[in-house]
Amino acid sequence: MTWTLEALNAASAADFVAALGGVFEHAPWVAGEAAARRPFGRVEDLFAAMAAAVAAAPEARRLGLLTNHPELAGRAARDGRIAPDSIAEQASAGLDRLSEDEYARFEALNAAYRARFGFPFILCIRRHGRASLLRSFARRLEASPEDERRSAEAEVLRIAAIRLNALVEGEGPLRTTGRISTHVLDTAVGRPAAGVAVELAEFVSETESVVVARARTNADGRTDAPLIGGRPVPLAAYELRFRLGDHYRAAGLDLPEPPFLDIVALRFGAADPEGHYHVPLVASPWSYQTYRGS
Amino acid sequence: MTWTLEALNAASAADFVAALGGVFEHAPWVAGEAAARRPFGRVEDLFAAMAAAVAAAPEARRLGLLTNHPELAGRAARDGRIAPDSIAEQASAGLDRLSEDEYARFEALNAAYRARFGFPFILCIRRHGRASLLRSFARRLEASPEDERRSAEAEVLRIAAIRLNALVEGEGPLRTTGRISTHVLDTAVGRPAAGVAVELAEFVSETESVVVARARTNADGRTDAPLIGGRPVPLAAYELRFRLGDHYRAAGLDLPEPPFLDIVALRFGAADPEGHYHVPLVASPWSYQTYRGS
Amino acid sequence: MTWTLEALNAASAADFVAALGGVFEHAPWVAGEAAARRPFGRVEDLFAAMAAAVAAAPEARRLGLLTNHPELAGRAARDGRIAPDSIAEQASAGLDRLSEDEYARFEALNAAYRARFGFPFILCIRRHGRASLLRSFARRLEASPEDERRSAEAEVLRIAAIRLNALVEGEGPLRTTGRISTHVLDTAVGRPAAGVAVELAEFVSETESVVVARARTNADGRTDAPLIGGRPVPLAAYELRFRLGDHYRAAGLDLPEPPFLDIVALRFGAADPEGHYHVPLVASPWSYQTYRGS
Amino acid sequence: MTWTLEALNAASAADFVAALGGVFEHAPWVAGEAAARRPFGRVEDLFAAMAAAVAAAPEARRLGLLTNHPELAGRAARDGRIAPDSIAEQASAGLDRLSEDEYARFEALNAAYRARFGFPFILCIRRHGRASLLRSFARRLEASPEDERRSAEAEVLRIAAIRLNALVEGEGPLRTTGRISTHVLDTAVGRPAAGVAVELAEFVSETESVVVARARTNADGRTDAPLIGGRPVPLAAYELRFRLGDHYRAAGLDLPEPPFLDIVALRFGAADPEGHYHVPLVASPWSYQTYRGS
Repeated sequence: MTWTLEALNAASAADFVAALGGVFEHAPWVAGEAAARRPFGRVEDLFAAMAAAVAAAPEARRLGLLTNHPELAGRAARDGRIAPDSIAEQASAGLDRLSEDEYARFEALNAAYRARFGFPFILCIRRHGRASLLRSFARRLEASPEDERRSAEAEVLRIAAIRLNALVEGEGPLRTTGRISTHVLDTAVGRPAAGVAVELAEFVSETESVVVARARTNADGRTDAPLIGGRPVPLAAYELRFRLGDHYRAAGLDLPEPPFLDIVALRFGAADPEGHYHVPLVASPWSYQTYRGS
Repeated sequence: MTWTLEALNAASAADFVAALGGVFEHAPWVAGEAAARRPFGRVEDLFAAMAAAVAAAPEARRLGLLTNHPELAGRAARDGRIAPDSIAEQASAGLDRLSEDEYARFEALNAAYRARFGFPFILCIRRHGRASLLRSFARRLEASPEDERRSAEAEVLRIAAIRLNALVEGEGPLRTTGRISTHVLDTAVGRPAAGVAVELAEFVSETESVVVARARTNADGRTDAPLIGGRPVPLAAYELRFRLGDHYRAAGLDLPEPPFLDIVALRFGAADPEGHYHVPLVASPWSYQTYRGS
Repeated sequence: MTWTLEALNAASAADFVAALGGVFEHAPWVAGEAAARRPFGRVEDLFAAMAAAVAAAPEARRLGLLTNHPELAGRAARDGRIAPDSIAEQASAGLDRLSEDEYARFEALNAAYRARFGFPFILCIRRHGRASLLRSFARRLEASPEDERRSAEAEVLRIAAIRLNALVEGEGPLRTTGRISTHVLDTAVGRPAAGVAVELAEFVSETESVVVARARTNADGRTDAPLIGGRPVPLAAYELRFRLGDHYRAAGLDLPEPPFLDIVALRFGAADPEGHYHVPLVASPWSYQTYRGS
Repeated sequence: MTWTLEALNAASAADFVAALGGVFEHAPWVAGEAAARRPFGRVEDLFAAMAAAVAAAPEARRLGLLTNHPELAGRAARDGRIAPDSIAEQASAGLDRLSEDEYARFEALNAAYRARFGFPFILCIRRHGRASLLRSFARRLEASPEDERRSAEAEVLRIAAIRLNALVEGEGPLRTTGRISTHVLDTAVGRPAAGVAVELAEFVSETESVVVARARTNADGRTDAPLIGGRPVPLAAYELRFRLGDHYRAAGLDLPEPPFLDIVALRFGAADPEGHYHVPLVASPWSYQTYRGS
């Protein structure tokens, strides 16, 4: 369930901790500290108070925030011995559907990481695509202990911010969502192209991609909802595919077979999970262009 | 070996037939008829004379032109019992490297076709990609006997034209080749983009593609040779892929990771095997466009 | 002053006519007829009732609607002997600032038109630019009396619609406004271009243009308000001019002198006064493009 | 008349000087020095020898090269008391058709310049448009005597290079010409746009432009000859104007009146007189783009 800031400000400390105790994994004490700093006028103030509590906590507690985190695709996750939010987060990245080989790869990375840094690899999964997740894991294994400690704590805060936003309604929500949107303009007739089938695929490797969203353009040439929205845009390379040939065939144009433009594919990368990637298609039967729009 | 028109005009009838007897499969008589119409000032006149001989031939001979043709990926081809040119043509479409299943599919199509029309399926393979070849086969199986007879004879002439062009040098060569070329312009600096790795892939199905050419752009932003040239452009859907991200990294730009544009993929279809498909990439790190150029 | 539909529905017939009597020039009887058809739920219903009253009126009254209209830039207009709305409308097209020669030209056209059709030339001026106004005048002088009668009555309704919209607030306003807007995207950095000086000029002849609006792009690369809005877009050829060179100089780029792109001029025509002309500029220092957007 | 390098190498010193004595204004001695350094294999070697002779000359002679130069639009030019090449050069910039006011302005600038530097203002006129010429004049008046002496000598060499290229035929001509060219692609049909009327105008002020070339596109969408070629491209802002509306009307399209795109105007600046400015128009009836091409 979600709470309003007002309700949280008015709640007993116990209820407050019951409500927000899970924002930091296995660390209800963070909510406890924040409860004492009420009232909060804005969600971001509440989050700042929790972050301050973490920063002010003794080393043992701060380290605990890391050591208590579940491993990615780890044994505990497979056996369901992790927090519900973690289950959902790992599932969102498909980590609950890995092949035995992939599990094995993760177990090896997890073991190497824990051996080197003394705590599990922590990453705000919702901000990463499959390829990016593995790239980050490999890269961070190379980092210095100091840098890596900072990276891990930053990821803990990113995870907490998303969880808090999902639990609390109020002014000043945290910036934890991005968007991928598109727009199709038909320059043969000077109007938006309606009814164009669009799909968004994420590259899980340089050559392999999986479709993550499908839509059709409306009368304004846009999709009714963003192709990705209301969540961070996973760091990844994407491909937007438009059935432009079908659009022009439906418009009665006499196209060659195969048409010069049939499925138009726009590849682009998203490096800012909280950013807006507007990637329009401006096309005629014989030309098209795209750009990062706004 | 190749002949000049002059040499062919001066040759004995026997030598002339020896030289051009294979232009029409198992039908040296076509060259024989043409020999009597010498001299020829242009290659296209020589070809017109051969086509006229075919048109004027009695039905039995004209039908023989079809019945004597080898089947695509047929038993004869597998056992090497077909004309050398046919072997090369079928190999160019990969028909000598089919899986057992694919062979089986061709044998079934060949049998159905022969049963329906009384002669083997004839197609100028060099003008078709793998997907187009199978599409044409299925479509022509549905045609009326009259239409299909005309289609088969047209293909025989297309095959002959390519063989003749390869054998004879002289004025007025036949139009049997097309081109796929590209050009990369960097609109961030207003200059051609040099050293960009480009690959051309052919879609053998809607989702599966195979790389058919690789090149790097020169100082003028073009490839030294067309990506496809000196032969017909196989009817197919293609994808040009440019390593634009590498180009901008090499230029010292500070790109996000992943970059907005890394591998740019331009999909287009070629429906005119004798046409010129110039498909340029006009790009900055945040936008690009293409069109059918000239 | 403006009225709400509710107030008009509740008003006495006399007040209703006092409020809307000027919607049709010198023809308060139209409002009188409409008063009897109250109540109206939507502005468009009220207008439909007035149009129906006109259509049902005897010939003398309908012709009177035309004969009572003031001439464009006519003697009456110069001497202020026309309805206040007419004064404003003619001023909006600069007809109150004509040279003696221009007045003479209009007087000649007015005389020729009245001699041919028996009523003054009527045009909804707000829907026309200077050049279009004169083109229409010349073209309509050539029309048949039947066609021209229809054209004149259509213009009377267009004028009335704009006047009614200005007087009445309520559901279902009439569609009497269009828009010209723009948007500047900087494809060198993948962001909207802020602070770009933009001007919109109207061509009053093929070579002569007058600036009709000036603005600067905001952080989103748009102008805070449309360059033309809240009124019909005068039928005309326009030119949008962007100081792109200044934008890139301000961004610290080292441009040649003169820069390849300094003032970018986009010429376009507006043929639908009630339409939305979104004309974006997508540019790098060495390339740009535009299209009719949405 | 023009000479071949061979002929010049074989000529008597007197004939050599008679042929090339005018390359440096009123300074046949430069040719005289070069004559002694024959033979020359390439035109650029001949020019290098003349430049070396200038560099090695005593101060009096080098200063003479400057002081003997005619003023721009000066009294001597008006009265025809200058070298024929100078007359042609000044005429090419319209300096023989100035208004009295313009003459007065030049006389004032000339006087101020001579007073400050002791020699006349020297500029290779063929490399400048009218506006650039006046900008340069004003800017150089502000330079230090040392810098300005260097600028003046550099201009003398530029003038000499153009004159020498015009007189001598042979290997290794000097790079003294640039080009402005265009290309129209119709993306509604995927073909070059033939028969499009194009004009090139030079801006002589920010708002005033004069047409300097007219052409029509050929079957390949290009103009048969560059719009400017075989000479330096005058430093200036230009506008290419294309009658795109006429093209689409001729193609039978039903365009609104006025069409969205009728006359398309591409403004660009040329800052490299020896460069190639290829400025294509890639257009549909509702969109267009341009870029600096190659």
